[in-house]
Amino acid sequence: MAAPFDVVGIGNAIVDVLAHSTDAFLARHSLPKGGMTLIDAHQAQRLYAEMGPGVECSGGSAANTMAGLASLGSRAAYIGKVHDDELGRVFRHDLTAAGVYFATPPMRKGPTTARCLILVTPDAQRTMQTYLGACTQLGPEDIDADLIAQSKVTYLEGYLFDPPAAKEAFTKAATLAHKAGRKVALSLSDGFCVNRHRAEFLDLVKNHVDILFANENEIGALYQTVEFDDALQAMRGHCEIAALTRSEKGSVVLAGDEVHIIDAEADVAVIDTTGAGDLYAAGFLHGLATGRSLADCARLGGICAAEVIGHVGARPGRPLDRLIAEKMG
Amino acid sequence: MAAPFDVVGIGNAIVDVLAHSTDAFLARHSLPKGGMTLIDAHQAQRLYAEMGPGVECSGGSAANTMAGLASLGSRAAYIGKVHDDELGRVFRHDLTAAGVYFATPPMRKGPTTARCLILVTPDAQRTMQTYLGACTQLGPEDIDADLIAQSKVTYLEGYLFDPPAAKEAFTKAATLAHKAGRKVALSLSDGFCVNRHRAEFLDLVKNHVDILFANENEIGALYQTVEFDDALQAMRGHCEIAALTRSEKGSVVLAGDEVHIIDAEADVAVIDTTGAGDLYAAGFLHGLATGRSLADCARLGGICAAEVIGHVGARPGRPLDRLIAEKMG
Repeated sequence: MAAPFDVVGIGNAIVDVLAHSTDAFLARHSLPKGGMTLIDAHQAQRLYAEMGPGVECSGGSAANTMAGLASLGSRAAYIGKVHDDELGRVFRHDLTAAGVYFATPPMRKGPTTARCLILVTPDAQRTMQTYLGACTQLGPEDIDADLIAQSKVTYLEGYLFDPPAAKEAFTKAATLAHKAGRKVALSLSDGFCVNRHRAEFLDLVKNHVDILFANENEIGALYQTVEFDDALQAMRGHCEIAALTRSEKGSVVLAGDEVHIIDAEADVAVIDTTGAGDLYAAGFLHGLATGRSLADCARLGGICAAEVIGHVGARPGRPLDRLIAEKMG
Repeated sequence: MAAPFDVVGIGNAIVDVLAHSTDAFLARHSLPKGGMTLIDAHQAQRLYAEMGPGVECSGGSAANTMAGLASLGSRAAYIGKVHDDELGRVFRHDLTAAGVYFATPPMRKGPTTARCLILVTPDAQRTMQTYLGACTQLGPEDIDADLIAQSKVTYLEGYLFDPPAAKEAFTKAATLAHKAGRKVALSLSDGFCVNRHRAEFLDLVKNHVDILFANENEIGALYQTVEFDDALQAMRGHCEIAALTRSEKGSVVLAGDEVHIIDAEADVAVIDTTGAGDLYAAGFLHGLATGRSLADCARLGGICAAEVIGHVGARPGRPLDRLIAEKMG
């Protein structure tokens, strides 16, 4: 069925503050490297005061994916909550200027726009501390039923399970999408997040998700496995398509009995891994939207991920449609 | 005479919003490529709405130079005006986290923190549109006489001549510095800015400035010359040291009868030229502070400029002291 949008993403609307950091700084503040930790306003203020000079970039996992999709030429929409403050206006500007349809009304009172303090260590790994702020105010009433029905895929980030009202919004959106005969995609987001909500995620993956995105760490957390191959076995038949990313080892796509193993892009100078998974999902979903083979979808994902890890920040640094044309013709 | 600070910089305290752009966009909005144009709040809002997705980085010409100096290991201080708003707090955080002493009190009413909308074209050239906001509130009362007296060099950006009260602050600072037996350094900032204040700049350079920084375009505007060599002839004897930058042609240093010609760094992948002149000045002033030869000062300037044009944003992307140790030992 034709649809005005290829993908609508729903997620926590966040502005990132990225700063270079050392491993010693992470250790001193007991920050779990590579993970996403929730912090309150007070903790955010304290950590910010001790961090090095930063760069502000719009972020938010699903929003990054939608910005990537738009840059690839797909028609993308977004649902997420900001405050009507400076950072909220920055977030709105960046997403709409990227070509993403975004109409969720901002809060005019209550907590400020969410920010994520991201520490990038010399190994290019990113460690995130998120103050959710206005994101805690996203609820089922923000889910526009028409928008969901008019999007081929509803893409949900696992991070939505952290704020309780957003979880309700998540469930409503997934239900509406399936009712309209659309697909539901989920990114598991983060190993710590999976651990916080494991039973619910497992139910979702088994029974409600058509397209799953996860990295090795997240899928291991979900199935409580150590070896990647054990997770692959455990998840067989659980969703229509699973795209599992393995950093420099590339990605693996499962679909029924099909298994595709795709190498990572070669010769990538890794500056900052923030957004790698988000942009992989963008490339993959763009491939699906344009009728490519699953192997090509994964390759598109790998190319987009390689672009975003080559610079600071989680949004594309150059037009992805042209990059793809160069790389894949 | 010993001094707690090597350099105190005084300038417009600005947060940059950097976005990729096309030449057609500049033409459509009649924006003079490579220049800095002053805009009001309304124009800023309109232009921002039409710009592509951005990245926010603390900027401000003299502030960039001070951040560079601190990263090199020099002791740097800064005087400039922000509002007590989100962007003002970002500016303060980034500068102090870089190791720069910054104690100018923020405004609690009046215009918001200044922002500069910077359009980076595919040739890596940057075109700047500045909303001065709180910078218009910097005045002579903000010039801390003790701080000036305790800094070996007072570094002033030419942009300070745009807001009238800041110009008074500029003159007061220069006078105090000389009274205390210190040096005064000036960056001409921008060709358009020089044209707006030519007679006053000429008087300054002839009679009040010890160390001058300018690029080819600015020095041509000041002496109304077309050929670089004619400008060199015209300015002889006008200040103790003049460091003139020529982009990929390197730089030329004049000091009395001495002339040094220094090549630019080789093999630089230019991403965004924002901050090139500011970081050249940082390297050069660090060289002076550490007693290097003028040729080495210029080489330090070139290395720092090459670092900042290799990424988006006008502040160092890596510790400059280590970079210098690698390049010059």
